[in-house]
Amino acid sequence: MDFSRQYFRGQIHKDIKVPYKLLNLKDPLISHFYTYDTSGGYNQKLDLKSLEVGLKKKRHQWYLENKLISSYGARESKPEDNGFATISELAQQFYVSDNMRYKGNSKSKKITQMALAKQGLITPEMEYVSIRENTTRHWLKENIDKWSHLEKYRSLLSNWVTPEFVRNEVAMGRAIIPVNINHPESEPMIIGKNFLVKINANIGNSAVTSDIKSEVEKMVWACRFGADTLMDLSTGKNIHNTREWIIRNSPVPIGTVPLYQALEKVRGRVKDLSWEVYKDTLIEQCEQGVDYFTIHAGVLKEYIPLTQNRITGIVSRGGSIMAKWCLDHNKQNFLYEKFEEICEILSQYDVSFSLGDGLRPGCIADANDKAQFAELKTLGELTKTAWSYDCQVMIEGPGHVPLNKINENMEKQELGCFEAPFYTLGPLTTDVAPGYDHITSAIGAAQIASIGTSLLCYVTQKEHLGLPNKDDVREAVVTYKLAAHAANVSKGNNIEQIRDDLLSKARFEFRWEDQFNLSLDPEKARELHDETLPHEAHKKSKFCSMCGPKFCSMKISHDIQDSLIEVHL
Amino acid sequence: MDFSRQYFRGQIHKDIKVPYKLLNLKDPLISHFYTYDTSGGYNQKLDLKSLEVGLKKKRHQWYLENKLISSYGARESKPEDNGFATISELAQQFYVSDNMRYKGNSKSKKITQMALAKQGLITPEMEYVSIRENTTRHWLKENIDKWSHLEKYRSLLSNWVTPEFVRNEVAMGRAIIPVNINHPESEPMIIGKNFLVKINANIGNSAVTSDIKSEVEKMVWACRFGADTLMDLSTGKNIHNTREWIIRNSPVPIGTVPLYQALEKVRGRVKDLSWEVYKDTLIEQCEQGVDYFTIHAGVLKEYIPLTQNRITGIVSRGGSIMAKWCLDHNKQNFLYEKFEEICEILSQYDVSFSLGDGLRPGCIADANDKAQFAELKTLGELTKTAWSYDCQVMIEGPGHVPLNKINENMEKQELGCFEAPFYTLGPLTTDVAPGYDHITSAIGAAQIASIGTSLLCYVTQKEHLGLPNKDDVREAVVTYKLAAHAANVSKGNNIEQIRDDLLSKARFEFRWEDQFNLSLDPEKARELHDETLPHEAHKKSKFCSMCGPKFCSMKISHDIQDSLIEVHL
Repeated sequence: MDFSRQYFRGQIHKDIKVPYKLLNLKDPLISHFYTYDTSGGYNQKLDLKSLEVGLKKKRHQWYLENKLISSYGARESKPEDNGFATISELAQQFYVSDNMRYKGNSKSKKITQMALAKQGLITPEMEYVSIRENTTRHWLKENIDKWSHLEKYRSLLSNWVTPEFVRNEVAMGRAIIPVNINHPESEPMIIGKNFLVKINANIGNSAVTSDIKSEVEKMVWACRFGADTLMDLSTGKNIHNTREWIIRNSPVPIGTVPLYQALEKVRGRVKDLSWEVYKDTLIEQCEQGVDYFTIHAGVLKEYIPLTQNRITGIVSRGGSIMAKWCLDHNKQNFLYEKFEEICEILSQYDVSFSLGDGLRPGCIADANDKAQFAELKTLGELTKTAWSYDCQVMIEGPGHVPLNKINENMEKQELGCFEAPFYTLGPLTTDVAPGYDHITSAIGAAQIASIGTSLLCYVTQKEHLGLPNKDDVREAVVTYKLAAHAANVSKGNNIEQIRDDLLSKARFEFRWEDQFNLSLDPEKARELHDETLPHEAHKKSKFCSMCGPKFCSMKISHDIQDSLIEVHL
Repeated sequence: MDFSRQYFRGQIHKDIKVPYKLLNLKDPLISHFYTYDTSGGYNQKLDLKSLEVGLKKKRHQWYLENKLISSYGARESKPEDNGFATISELAQQFYVSDNMRYKGNSKSKKITQMALAKQGLITPEMEYVSIRENTTRHWLKENIDKWSHLEKYRSLLSNWVTPEFVRNEVAMGRAIIPVNINHPESEPMIIGKNFLVKINANIGNSAVTSDIKSEVEKMVWACRFGADTLMDLSTGKNIHNTREWIIRNSPVPIGTVPLYQALEKVRGRVKDLSWEVYKDTLIEQCEQGVDYFTIHAGVLKEYIPLTQNRITGIVSRGGSIMAKWCLDHNKQNFLYEKFEEICEILSQYDVSFSLGDGLRPGCIADANDKAQFAELKTLGELTKTAWSYDCQVMIEGPGHVPLNKINENMEKQELGCFEAPFYTLGPLTTDVAPGYDHITSAIGAAQIASIGTSLLCYVTQKEHLGLPNKDDVREAVVTYKLAAHAANVSKGNNIEQIRDDLLSKARFEFRWEDQFNLSLDPEKARELHDETLPHEAHKKSKFCSMCGPKFCSMKISHDIQDSLIEVHL
């Protein structure tokens, strides 16, 4: 591919370098294009050796001068962190030179992006994401006079995403920048309805299959193809060690569900879960650098009977575990009871909340039911509490929803959760296509993102069937990238349509290589083209094997346009 | 797979046998399910020998007694019908015992379904499709008391699709039953917004690649996986011979674009096209049994300049050919000029119009422009003319449309074309994902079908890149089947949701085989599952490799439901 990773410089914070991808084109009018780059610099060939060192801790220095942040000797790793793996079971540890980690040192003065935003401060992270969101605008400003079609986008140049706009959105809770100060390797990004729609890829091993190498490889693939955030949903042994490898090498924010690890610490016995084990897990993961936690604090004991007549009961793993715990003990969910203490901990590291939808519907029949909306209301209340601790918050959403019930989800979430960003899993719009659930869900995802969802959690074709491999990850990431892009194009952010226009121009002008390079998955486009016309010469052909030379409408269209110019009909 | 092809009998026309698929289930409450069956009886193993005989001419006898229909010696095949293929180039002919074909013999008394519907007659075709549309209702009626969840569908049992309802919709032009009397092998189906959403698969060779065997194989695969209609878009040599093999073996209606063959008859020289060559092609194809024709009669000479500033010009092959012809001759489109004569011909065989959108947008930037909507208005006028000849009509639509501009397409089409069925190609909701255009377009297809489009033309992953092979056909058919299903579930026809409910029930009860068999592509679901858990024993496991045994929410949910019953919280 004909591209390189380049950087924009900060204006307020001179030392920040915001990445973008520079694509070289053979367009007669336009020599190059810029795209938002999530790759973290991972290119086609993965250097396995470099993974042992981890990425550069680019943001580390930003925190060194902050008097509210102190380093301290962190919690030592314990056998239960890796599910009591025996020596032979234990996966290789990622080498860290010391266990010094960072946290906020004042209870009254928080260090979160929200706290700083409320104080009117524009942090490096805020300026960083504002520059990053403007990637296409930067290009447009430099190139608008090169092609007459770009004129229609001119008004968008008076409407930049400013650092101040970012600050205000974060202060209001309408957007979050998930940046644990212990994950300085990550490149800041923002999640909110007034920004580009983002996508999340789930990775992580299960007790049945996979290993660290496979999971790190999935992480790299996901970033390359455009994942904006990743969740490490590992279960089984080696959770701690797997996560360390992932975080130290991840250029994007990492989310987890701490409950999974807590459950391993009590050897899988739900009844033995306790606040103490959970709290220990939170601190362990805060210190490791997890950027956001899914916390199922809205699964209240009294909501559980509402799921009794569902076809698929409770399908959230965390939700079902907490529900079982409530019933086993006949007690209220301890995540709800201890919510303020959780806020206190998360605020010290700036770990964001992703309030889990433990009662989300698991099939079309269960969509938009009482259990789901009761929990959503509670998530709204918890949002207010978390904001009072200056914690950043997003809200998780379903799941399985038919097309005609998607709008209600978005409306209820915006109203009930005070515009905190919505983070949905698809939703799947039908249950009848296992093996194709990346598509059943991309249909719902594009729809719900076009009306305000900020972050789309991908679903792979293996959903409901098995653990995805790296090819499944790639296909799902690209599928969600295109769904997010379709939503961006249909929203106010239609500056993103410039990429569609440039690709279509390349298509019309038979610049095959440009068409491939401008696409979301250049290798696949090239591969499918080459299946029938593999020779290099055909990269300059004025046709493809679909229609052949005589029936290419684009070729005929060129003749027509020539005639029109001659004839002035 | 555990299924068989069964039949419902007619009530009015006792000799009709309407197919459905009977799936055997291991559900403790429900022993089986019925689904709409497009397969024509083609099962897993294709008997190549049987293709040489063709399918049974099931509908032949329905026409024998009709005094308005006569047999006659049809046009003999000519060298130009196969693009002047030399003996060595000529593909094998399908063997037909004689060249007797059928047509209506009266100018004043038409034989089309629309003509008969207007007279108040309920034809066998009308009763056939009414029974077919009721497939799920038939099952529900027999099974409603077996599972309490089905209660919510009870009201739908008082709302059957009656033959009279079908007749009325056809008479009004709101639905069509594409059934050329010379394609008696096909199993009638209906296209209209008040019926199940249907899907079309495009097949056909190009001058660059493929052969008859591959195309017939694609036809069989498409039918197996759920295509409701097929278009044979072959170009190059052997068009006539390819089509004969396809029609004689196709259980679903076949559409074509006669212009492609007409162009081959004048050796690819657009300027040499004429009404005489086109008319000869229409008659040839009417006699062969093509069920609907895409006719680009709306590409008026005066609309061509409206495409001049588009990014991708005219992307419809037929549209670009006619536009070029208009400019070459400085004359009005002869398809428009001779439209009444075309109606006269089509009405004799009951070939339906699919009024082509020759000026559809070929990229996001060109969507909903003046050229597109000018043509749409003309298509509305032509619809009225065709109806005055009792011809059945549907209207083709785009193409490439961003999500926020889809509604306008549907509204303008319904109003401007008087509710004639809309038949859209996707639409693709972004241009940036070549290699994934089955998905970019399924997003648009589900959306536009949920608001009234009746027939969705699939797009394969090879779109813009090359000619699809049979695997591409399969993937695209299933993708469109799920998009159509998602639309059905979200529309009034939500009786189709029963399939989602049964599959979800199977999923929750860990009946893996039932889950596979109820899905749109059982083999793929099974294959993905077996990738990590191949042993037969795992088909009874209460988990899959995604979450493993300890983390299966569905398993925990069973415990919760048991507790709830015990505890009465």
